[in-house]
Amino acid sequence: MIMEIAYITISPGRADEFEEVLKSALDIVRGADGFIDVHVHRGIERPDVVMLAIAWETLEAHTVGFRESDRFIQWRAAISPFFAEPPSVEHWILR
Amino acid sequence: MIMEIAYITISPGRADEFEEVLKSALDIVRGADGFIDVHVHRGIERPDVVMLAIAWETLEAHTVGFRESDRFIQWRAAISPFFAEPPSVEHWILR
Repeated sequence: MIMEIAYITISPGRADEFEEVLKSALDIVRGADGFIDVHVHRGIERPDVVMLAIAWETLEAHTVGFRESDRFIQWRAAISPFFAEPPSVEHWILR
Repeated sequence: MIMEIAYITISPGRADEFEEVLKSALDIVRGADGFIDVHVHRGIERPDVVMLAIAWETLEAHTVGFRESDRFIQWRAAISPFFAEPPSVEHWILR
């Protein structure tokens, strides 16, 4: 299992609206092959940042299977209007 | 519940040794009031970074209860010899 940790900085004042959009937009991710689960977090020190913790069966399930699929285009179309800057994404191996 | 996400950059070549030390050192954290659970991750893009995801009952359980206790002194004594730089720590609210 691989954890994707993504930090999404939202345009000022739009983070609550973004969280509402996420509720349905995440269904696009949930349907991807190799998706395991997702948790959504909001920053305490950085309240305009949403952290997504997404578990994937493999690294490639995210970086190839999802990112090269039509789902990724739909996902980014739904969420990118809220971006204040490009998301920061890294992958982690659970020990 | 509050998530603490801590990034610890380890001195070059010492990350495996650090993970071994963590196994017992985390017992110091586990014994703290308000501790819920911890997951340890290793970076894929940054293999010298260990990410700790620690769930606490409240923010203050970490920032006051733990950090102002003797446990914090013991914890930092155990892990700080491995630091390449000061850890980066933020707190997140699970949605």
